[in-house]
Amino acid sequence: MSERLPDDVEARLRRLEDERDIARMMASYGPLVDGGDADGVAALWAPDGVYDIDELFLAGREQIGAMVRSAAHRGWIRQGCAHVVGPPHITVDGDEAVAVCHSLMVVHEEGRYVVRRATANHWRLRRTDSAPGWEVVTRTNRVLDGRPESPALLAGGVRGERAQG
Amino acid sequence: MSERLPDDVEARLRRLEDERDIARMMASYGPLVDGGDADGVAALWAPDGVYDIDELFLAGREQIGAMVRSAAHRGWIRQGCAHVVGPPHITVDGDEAVAVCHSLMVVHEEGRYVVRRATANHWRLRRTDSAPGWEVVTRTNRVLDGRPESPALLAGGVRGERAQG
Amino acid sequence: MSERLPDDVEARLRRLEDERDIARMMASYGPLVDGGDADGVAALWAPDGVYDIDELFLAGREQIGAMVRSAAHRGWIRQGCAHVVGPPHITVDGDEAVAVCHSLMVVHEEGRYVVRRATANHWRLRRTDSAPGWEVVTRTNRVLDGRPESPALLAGGVRGERAQG
Repeated sequence: MSERLPDDVEARLRRLEDERDIARMMASYGPLVDGGDADGVAALWAPDGVYDIDELFLAGREQIGAMVRSAAHRGWIRQGCAHVVGPPHITVDGDEAVAVCHSLMVVHEEGRYVVRRATANHWRLRRTDSAPGWEVVTRTNRVLDGRPESPALLAGGVRGERAQG
Repeated sequence: MSERLPDDVEARLRRLEDERDIARMMASYGPLVDGGDADGVAALWAPDGVYDIDELFLAGREQIGAMVRSAAHRGWIRQGCAHVVGPPHITVDGDEAVAVCHSLMVVHEEGRYVVRRATANHWRLRRTDSAPGWEVVTRTNRVLDGRPESPALLAGGVRGERAQG
Repeated sequence: MSERLPDDVEARLRRLEDERDIARMMASYGPLVDGGDADGVAALWAPDGVYDIDELFLAGREQIGAMVRSAAHRGWIRQGCAHVVGPPHITVDGDEAVAVCHSLMVVHEEGRYVVRRATANHWRLRRTDSAPGWEVVTRTNRVLDGRPESPALLAGGVRGERAQG
């Protein structure tokens, strides 16, 4: 009696689980950041992870958490704010992965809502031993306002390319 | 000759299928409600399920279907309307699950589109014997306009907490 | 010693992989089209695939690629543009599949963003031997501006119906 599985079933299951873990982690960002959960947001990143936004360069969990705790971010939450992170395209390569998606920042203004930003999102991720199994090494966000690096980030991300600085 | 699988493969497959079934059901809400399919929408809920929206409290499939059949909702469809339900973060715990996501209600106005609402969505779900395998026990929607319960719903949902009334 | 799996495990894994492959392919459309990758966009379709948009009927990869290369589309990219394709509802039936979702076209205008279109998307897909395993046979997009065919496309798509011309 054998209970061993052929190797490819284990590998196929693992691949599906890896992609699920990454998608689930990415899907938590918006609710956590709009929920004001600074520690929850920071824990998505590696201890030395980077969140590289157009106007901000956040290095490490402390800076990332501080952004969520800032008066500016708390102001967005008080005003009404949705960071909608779109369905990801994920490419897993062993213990590393690249994901790409759009995000929309939608804010409340006097009873109506406006799209304040539409952004190209490129995520570099790394497998970890601790839950949720993957952490962000570098997330690079570039607003889609015509600057050439934003389309390049999207197209390169689909090909699984790491973003270039 | 054994065709038995190790228990953990069955459990891992089942977990992936549960999450798939829940995500697929949630992804059907927007197309069904914008498609005016009142019975299809109502069938997503348990017979005694609740749809708790800011300004509306719908208890049971009949009230939920009636909302889709209402003159107000039919007016939105005639005007042009998209209920975009964002990628879900799903936490399965045995025969129960909690999911959280954003939703945007986008409506057509004189040749252009406006975001009428950005909303925090918290879903409590329960396994059933009938297709699609899971049904909504309570869906709680709170508009993201600065009211404190909306961010709390998002952050609590990521932690798998049931919404508190 | 047996390494054969019960048939249903293979079928269940395959179903999950099929849905993953389709969702991943659909999630690549927005980044590719906003990234200006005309060949990448065209390759999502079957060689004789159709992209049937309200105001455009594109037959075959050459026409689809030409749309991405057009001055009009390049103008959108230079202006700043996000084609956000929502989470899909996928129905696989053997070597064919139907998927349905919303999409939003968000464009940059003088420092702010506007939703230019909210659209019902219906995808007919076919399994192929080459990566990514599935290709688009017909994608039908109808803007949600009150025209009756758009809600019908959404509701029919959830039921796995092929769009009718």
